[in-house]
Amino acid sequence: MAARFETGGIPKTTNKDLQNERSKATFTPEMLTYLLDGGKHKTERRRYLEKLIEKDPTGIFSNDTNELKHRTDRYVSALAKHVRLIELCRSMEFAAKQGNAGVEGGELILDEDWFTLLHALADDMPTSLHWIMFVPNIMSLCDEEQQKQWLPLCRNWQIMGCYAQTELGHGSNVRALETTATFVKGNDGGSWKINSPTLTSIKFWPGTLGRTANYAMLIARLIDGEGKDHGVHNFLVPLRSRKDHTLLPGVTTGDIGPKIGYNNIDNGFAKFDNVIIPRRNMAMKFASVDENGIYTKKNMSAAASKVAYITMMQVRAYIIMEAGKSLAKGLTIAIRYSAVRRQGFKNEKKSKVETQILDYTQQQHRLFPLVAASYCFFFTGKKIMTDLTAIENRLMAGDDSLRKNQVADIHASTSALKSFTSTITGDGLEDARKSCGGHGFLQASGLPELVTTYLQSATVEGDNQMLPMQVVKVLLNLVSAVQSGNEKDIAEWNDCDATYLVPLLQSMMNQETDKCVIDSEEGMMNFDVLLAAYKHRAARLLFQVSLKIYGQVQEGVPMEIAWNSALVQMGRVSRAHSLVILLVNFYNGIKEETGKGVLGDNEAKILTDLAVLFGLYWIEKESGEFLEDGYMSADQCQWVRAGVLNMLQIVRPNIVALVDANDFSDFRLKSTLGRKDGNVYPAIMEASKKDPLNVSEPGPGYDKHLKRLYVDGVGVFTGTASRL
Amino acid sequence: MAARFETGGIPKTTNKDLQNERSKATFTPEMLTYLLDGGKHKTERRRYLEKLIEKDPTGIFSNDTNELKHRTDRYVSALAKHVRLIELCRSMEFAAKQGNAGVEGGELILDEDWFTLLHALADDMPTSLHWIMFVPNIMSLCDEEQQKQWLPLCRNWQIMGCYAQTELGHGSNVRALETTATFVKGNDGGSWKINSPTLTSIKFWPGTLGRTANYAMLIARLIDGEGKDHGVHNFLVPLRSRKDHTLLPGVTTGDIGPKIGYNNIDNGFAKFDNVIIPRRNMAMKFASVDENGIYTKKNMSAAASKVAYITMMQVRAYIIMEAGKSLAKGLTIAIRYSAVRRQGFKNEKKSKVETQILDYTQQQHRLFPLVAASYCFFFTGKKIMTDLTAIENRLMAGDDSLRKNQVADIHASTSALKSFTSTITGDGLEDARKSCGGHGFLQASGLPELVTTYLQSATVEGDNQMLPMQVVKVLLNLVSAVQSGNEKDIAEWNDCDATYLVPLLQSMMNQETDKCVIDSEEGMMNFDVLLAAYKHRAARLLFQVSLKIYGQVQEGVPMEIAWNSALVQMGRVSRAHSLVILLVNFYNGIKEETGKGVLGDNEAKILTDLAVLFGLYWIEKESGEFLEDGYMSADQCQWVRAGVLNMLQIVRPNIVALVDANDFSDFRLKSTLGRKDGNVYPAIMEASKKDPLNVSEPGPGYDKHLKRLYVDGVGVFTGTASRL
Repeated sequence: MAARFETGGIPKTTNKDLQNERSKATFTPEMLTYLLDGGKHKTERRRYLEKLIEKDPTGIFSNDTNELKHRTDRYVSALAKHVRLIELCRSMEFAAKQGNAGVEGGELILDEDWFTLLHALADDMPTSLHWIMFVPNIMSLCDEEQQKQWLPLCRNWQIMGCYAQTELGHGSNVRALETTATFVKGNDGGSWKINSPTLTSIKFWPGTLGRTANYAMLIARLIDGEGKDHGVHNFLVPLRSRKDHTLLPGVTTGDIGPKIGYNNIDNGFAKFDNVIIPRRNMAMKFASVDENGIYTKKNMSAAASKVAYITMMQVRAYIIMEAGKSLAKGLTIAIRYSAVRRQGFKNEKKSKVETQILDYTQQQHRLFPLVAASYCFFFTGKKIMTDLTAIENRLMAGDDSLRKNQVADIHASTSALKSFTSTITGDGLEDARKSCGGHGFLQASGLPELVTTYLQSATVEGDNQMLPMQVVKVLLNLVSAVQSGNEKDIAEWNDCDATYLVPLLQSMMNQETDKCVIDSEEGMMNFDVLLAAYKHRAARLLFQVSLKIYGQVQEGVPMEIAWNSALVQMGRVSRAHSLVILLVNFYNGIKEETGKGVLGDNEAKILTDLAVLFGLYWIEKESGEFLEDGYMSADQCQWVRAGVLNMLQIVRPNIVALVDANDFSDFRLKSTLGRKDGNVYPAIMEASKKDPLNVSEPGPGYDKHLKRLYVDGVGVFTGTASRL
Repeated sequence: MAARFETGGIPKTTNKDLQNERSKATFTPEMLTYLLDGGKHKTERRRYLEKLIEKDPTGIFSNDTNELKHRTDRYVSALAKHVRLIELCRSMEFAAKQGNAGVEGGELILDEDWFTLLHALADDMPTSLHWIMFVPNIMSLCDEEQQKQWLPLCRNWQIMGCYAQTELGHGSNVRALETTATFVKGNDGGSWKINSPTLTSIKFWPGTLGRTANYAMLIARLIDGEGKDHGVHNFLVPLRSRKDHTLLPGVTTGDIGPKIGYNNIDNGFAKFDNVIIPRRNMAMKFASVDENGIYTKKNMSAAASKVAYITMMQVRAYIIMEAGKSLAKGLTIAIRYSAVRRQGFKNEKKSKVETQILDYTQQQHRLFPLVAASYCFFFTGKKIMTDLTAIENRLMAGDDSLRKNQVADIHASTSALKSFTSTITGDGLEDARKSCGGHGFLQASGLPELVTTYLQSATVEGDNQMLPMQVVKVLLNLVSAVQSGNEKDIAEWNDCDATYLVPLLQSMMNQETDKCVIDSEEGMMNFDVLLAAYKHRAARLLFQVSLKIYGQVQEGVPMEIAWNSALVQMGRVSRAHSLVILLVNFYNGIKEETGKGVLGDNEAKILTDLAVLFGLYWIEKESGEFLEDGYMSADQCQWVRAGVLNMLQIVRPNIVALVDANDFSDFRLKSTLGRKDGNVYPAIMEASKKDPLNVSEPGPGYDKHLKRLYVDGVGVFTGTASRL
């Protein structure tokens, strides 16, 4: 079939509509690329590493037939990519320190280059959790001697580990985990007996566990020599022989089965039946058990315990940063295709020219605020990462000037933002996919895998519906401080993301009413006016939740029931708080980068437009929350709606350049619709040619099944029918 | 591996939490089952036919390994199912008239039984469009002689057809289609030459076209004997030899490639190079071309032209009905699993019992309004189907009493409702999936395929973002009639779904202000109060759109620009109008069925609770639109929010019984999490065992790839690294 069908291949020229869109840009996209990468040098380094992957002569890194493969074959090809990647890295070696490498060639920088390479693969690796979770866990929870023993093996990929926490019947409630590690005395210095006592205690979900890993960092209840349960601790458990990868005695593991996305990864289950591991395989940095089975908690400074806590938050911060990038990927595809795609005649009866989809206001309304969000998330991701590092350094240095609540505050921020940004990104990617009409349904558009792989982000590292509780728990302490009126307690909330709440709550407690006083549409398009509205809303919703909970508790309702009654509102508080942080960082980030010369005036202008659009859009979307206490008026609400439409027009000429600036190569986008050259339709036909259903003519299943209808006539009807 | 791993199988008993939930129900679920099926007799017939499939001795209908198969194998197994289904049908024959069959055995009733059987398969058939689109097209567009020629072959499955309209570069804009059918004079009575003149004219997307069909109902521009273009017409084009399924000369077809869902179906492309078909293969009921190539439009009554139009609307009505069912499927899984799953200790420090997820208010808030929606959509789907049939019958009978606008009105209703119900269902299914946490990510939960297969509904049969334009186009005529003040014109809008708009628009045009006057939370929970609010909102949004468009036009703005500026608001109008229709039909439907004795008081009570919940929920969700013109006050808004939480508690005891009442068998649900017996965890482990990644030990890819790291040591590092 394929031989008979010639589409003429893909032209070498760029689609004219895309050329035209690019020529309209009022800013220099490359400057935004440097901003997003962290500097021109980093952009160039990234491009260099991406080319290494793309041009690798083995062809192992090709993603051309990913979506055509059976899952088993995709897993195997991902393993092949991993091993090839390691070979490539070994041929360059890693630099001893960051910053040593030039743009091209030279030694690789561990972490920075490694993650750039992983991104450059544009495919999910079943091995990636080894570096993301297993190795960091050893580094933060094992003592020095243990690290010396295990880290070299990890670095050499002779140990590949997974992080085994969740169990079949237990997700985020760590306290409920059932797996046990029981101390066994012996001449060997003692050992641990690992057991899965029930069906629900089977470890379930850890990535890399199913087929790939030979070690697990296992979370289990520690039962000491006297039979006392010390709650969950970490244990390094060998799963498979390092010689031949056979399962060790008492261990059973397997892959848990295909998923809606992320199918390169072998999420696994593991059952332990009296598995014996050495005593020193317990991670002993913060607690230890001696040869007699005596449990000791090690002295740990308050600061050190908080540092461990920060590592957890960094994962959430990473999700926030990645949200912007993932969203930008989907939008690059959707916006470029909307520029190329034409539908509907301009003038119903006469015209022969169809309209660019990008010119329909509802398409703009669907996509442009998401483009704004992708930039917005970048600024906050960067800011939160910087803040976390700064707090970590100050804790390590024993800096006394750190506010008592700063760690809790950033915990609230990361929780709220992880929930909000990954929700918006997940929904936004799917909306971007839908905005491509039928062709967005095709795997070859690149959008389906982008959507389904991203879906996990709403659930992992704190379910997006559960995180708001953690946010409100922290912020209610702020409410209490304000309520107490104690200046010292209040001051402990300075220099926090949540600081803005203090004066607003004070005025609410004094029953002062606050109103938006703007009296024109232009006025509504002012960033500070929007920000004030968001701050007011967040404070009001928080205050209402506190009244709701404590009001009930005062009436004798048990706390858990009062708390449960406020869960829906907590989601609103968390989202409202997120939006304040996002807007503040968006605006400040633009100013700061402009001050540093990273952005010119033109770049600052378009980003500020996006910030205003973002601010207006989310008020429009949730207008009830701004109206329901009279803060905003009906007129102001209408101005917001008009403002959104107005901003869409302002942003319109730059929209293709704004997605271009993300600088995703075609290799990374893997999309017929999102090609940089816009040759969408030839690319779709070329992709169809590779479809395995088309390899034989007639197609599969004809001889065995269809022929029985068409030739043998098993469907011939001998009775009488109602319709025929 | 599998041999070593024993989970003890799945218990025969039902989970206690589910037993407890069922015992709490205050109504008889079976009565709702009869309601949903259309009567006890139909329920029993459905169950009988489902058992035929489920217990078929060949085992061909098994869905056990669906998600483990490569797409090609799934397609082939679906063909096998189709042929087996035809065999089964032939062994029973079809009844000459509906209603002849008893509950068990007997002859099958065409259409009714056929669709029950298709649903019973619980798998998508690459052959289903033959009955759904191809055959109806022949019946409505071909003349009697043509029908006599082709329908018997269709009925005998010797012709299997597809409906080939969309092209690579052309979706819903039918006027832009490029494929041509050019008349060729000849001694054979004339023929058509079919051509795909450009790359973008390649037929693309039609289901069944790729590999399965041997005929296409092709939509092409008719070029008559004089070279005149008469726009698009339908042509019956043979694609493949009926003897050996080889492609006929000049025809190229193929599958378009894997998609995000619906992968059993071979959506295809087709390119035509001078394909010759007989003149009489043009569908000639409403137009014909004679042997000299002269085109004639046949006399067709206005009524007949409208009947053709109604057939199109029936497809949308079908989507509305199916939306409720699809949603109910996902909710059956999510609600049952939420009853079984426990997480979080009741009392933080002391308790050992974890809370049922179903007791968390945010889980209730997420799922219960969707349960309400699933019942709500049922009533409207049923009503619209009944209305369409009634209108069709009246048109056929030449009934003069039909209002001028009734066809346009139901066109607006079906367009609005198709868009709204399929959006809510698509989003709702994904939310139900997310509400199951990690396990909802597994294919074995049944939810991924439910979600991804449903996604097409937002795009097919009118993109959900485009349909609102059609709604507003109709409703603006109503606004004009009201504006004109002409009683006769206004009266033509009587007996319509949109009739409610007339008095509201009149009062708005008289600048009368309307306010919700309720002064208590109880008052807000009244159905009529809610409905009045919805009606007001719909009328106001419509009126605003008309002011926006005509205001601009009066100022000299071209209509197409004015129209484009209002597209975002049109989406709101369409949704607002949908909600009015849905609520009216929900409430009236309950009353009517209660009056007929189909529902008892207990069933009516719980359905009314759902209707109130549904009404409150959507005001809460879109509260801005009820507040922004002052119709509702801040207090009323708070009462709505409180009312939602209140209704969740009222509905809570019946929620499992409400999903049970849909009576989905485990065979149809295909879900580890949604099992009727609630044995979730054993079922998950059993499903994992079948995973192809687990068939060998060590797993696939070890020898070729992983071994190189673990044994050959290709990853051994010889330099110095930053972290290690």
